[in-house]
Amino acid sequence: MNDAPSSDDQRSVKPLRHAQTWVCGKPLALESGGQLPDVTVCFETWGELDADRANAIVICHALSGDSHVARHDAEDDPGWWDLLVGPGKPIDTDRYFVICSNVLGGCRGTTGPNFPSPETGRPYGADFPIVTVHDMVEVQKRLLDHLGIERLLAVVGGSLGGLQVLDWATAHPERVGAALVIAAAPRLSSQGIAFDVVGRNAIRHDPRWNGGQYYDGEAPEAGLAIARMLAHITYLSDESMRAKFDPTRLQPRQIETGFESVFSVGSYLAHQGDRFVERFDANSYITLSTAMDLFDLGETQD
Amino acid sequence: MNDAPSSDDQRSVKPLRHAQTWVCGKPLALESGGQLPDVTVCFETWGELDADRANAIVICHALSGDSHVARHDAEDDPGWWDLLVGPGKPIDTDRYFVICSNVLGGCRGTTGPNFPSPETGRPYGADFPIVTVHDMVEVQKRLLDHLGIERLLAVVGGSLGGLQVLDWATAHPERVGAALVIAAAPRLSSQGIAFDVVGRNAIRHDPRWNGGQYYDGEAPEAGLAIARMLAHITYLSDESMRAKFDPTRLQPRQIETGFESVFSVGSYLAHQGDRFVERFDANSYITLSTAMDLFDLGETQD
Repeated sequence: MNDAPSSDDQRSVKPLRHAQTWVCGKPLALESGGQLPDVTVCFETWGELDADRANAIVICHALSGDSHVARHDAEDDPGWWDLLVGPGKPIDTDRYFVICSNVLGGCRGTTGPNFPSPETGRPYGADFPIVTVHDMVEVQKRLLDHLGIERLLAVVGGSLGGLQVLDWATAHPERVGAALVIAAAPRLSSQGIAFDVVGRNAIRHDPRWNGGQYYDGEAPEAGLAIARMLAHITYLSDESMRAKFDPTRLQPRQIETGFESVFSVGSYLAHQGDRFVERFDANSYITLSTAMDLFDLGETQD
Repeated sequence: MNDAPSSDDQRSVKPLRHAQTWVCGKPLALESGGQLPDVTVCFETWGELDADRANAIVICHALSGDSHVARHDAEDDPGWWDLLVGPGKPIDTDRYFVICSNVLGGCRGTTGPNFPSPETGRPYGADFPIVTVHDMVEVQKRLLDHLGIERLLAVVGGSLGGLQVLDWATAHPERVGAALVIAAAPRLSSQGIAFDVVGRNAIRHDPRWNGGQYYDGEAPEAGLAIARMLAHITYLSDESMRAKFDPTRLQPRQIETGFESVFSVGSYLAHQGDRFVERFDANSYITLSTAMDLFDLGETQD
């Protein structure tokens, strides 16, 4: 429900070599009422900003994404949207200045639950405040101010990224030339929320959860993998699953996994879960999926 | 995907006062290749068998069901199908002799993972053999032989019960007058299997799972509750969930639970999960859901 389909096999778990870091020292008041004293933003850019600063496109990533949208050069690791972003591609980095920042609450360089809390010095963990999609966009807006970009040619994103685009377009319409909203709606259905709730329950009941303070030990990988498996079902249509798995339902991939792999579809999900936990933080999963569930453009948007 | 909607609040967790027990001493060869030395069958009956033994109806219960289909008298606990079964009701116990037995692999009186293994004397647990829907029907067939009923007026059931009806009608057509198949298909879709797989993974990764040998201690209730919550989403349509929860999405029921209850739909699922674990065994959940996933009427049935 929450994420564009992607092949985790192609995702990089290595350091993002082309990422830049900017620290916004101004406190960030959160919609939930809390506050962050400062925000570190990890972002990447492609292409050149033109003379009148009018060719900037912001890409907003989905729940499990990060700033690494596309390769920067031939030696670079694959990006999660190489298909669409690059020289001569639909989002043409020979023409546009493309920016993608890791989202507030994420786990790939921007302030999130794996950052130290100024109060305790330990990672926030489950004490990281509730952040909303609007808070995420506020951080992006500040980054653009820092980069000297007043108005965007376009904002683009799918799923959680699409919610950010919706917030951009409604909260800051004067700064957005075009809004490309993919796989997103004014609010999640109760069915969508329900799948997220079950995933978060799986994480919080992992034996290693430890109230969200697991950074000194082993992470709640089983719970996070189960949440990912469940979410992954919702990224595929019933029809595509039939086509992909029905002909070989009892011929699973031979994989090393601690999860059930009797059925073809089960081995696929186990693989997705196992790969996901190598690169994602369970507290961020809870933070970002909760932000999706709380998103609501209001009655007038129906 | 696997179960007819039901209100767990009305389910009895008390002893089944009207249940009868029959032990079939003949070994049961299983489709999977294993064998059970004998089978205990817990069943209930309503109404009277007529003189020519021609008014018998077998009801097959769903994954989470048991033999207690309907009240036997005014003092009795509610049954899971009181709406349909009783004097003057659609399945009229003034006219028909109705039989329902707890399914093979279940946890309410019929041989299943909570029964002692003859080899170890301890409960089978996860060592209970793989049983199929056809094995379940074989046990019911033996019970009918024991009761002296050659031919059924009808076999009725939904979900896992519907799969049993399909097996009855195809494996033993000469013994079945009518087959009423509800919410069942020749095989589960890969999407349906996928939801079951994730539920079983949640059970097996509960900190109390202990390889399925938890009968001397605390049961893996969190994992079982998560499996139930997930399954429960699939029992409701997207539309019915919108109608039920969208207007109050952030007004959860006030319940005592260890699960997330921020959202209305989350508190509902938490309640369903908490109630379910009071009356159901995690090993049986794995056994019966696996039987559903393995069910396949074959190519000719498409």
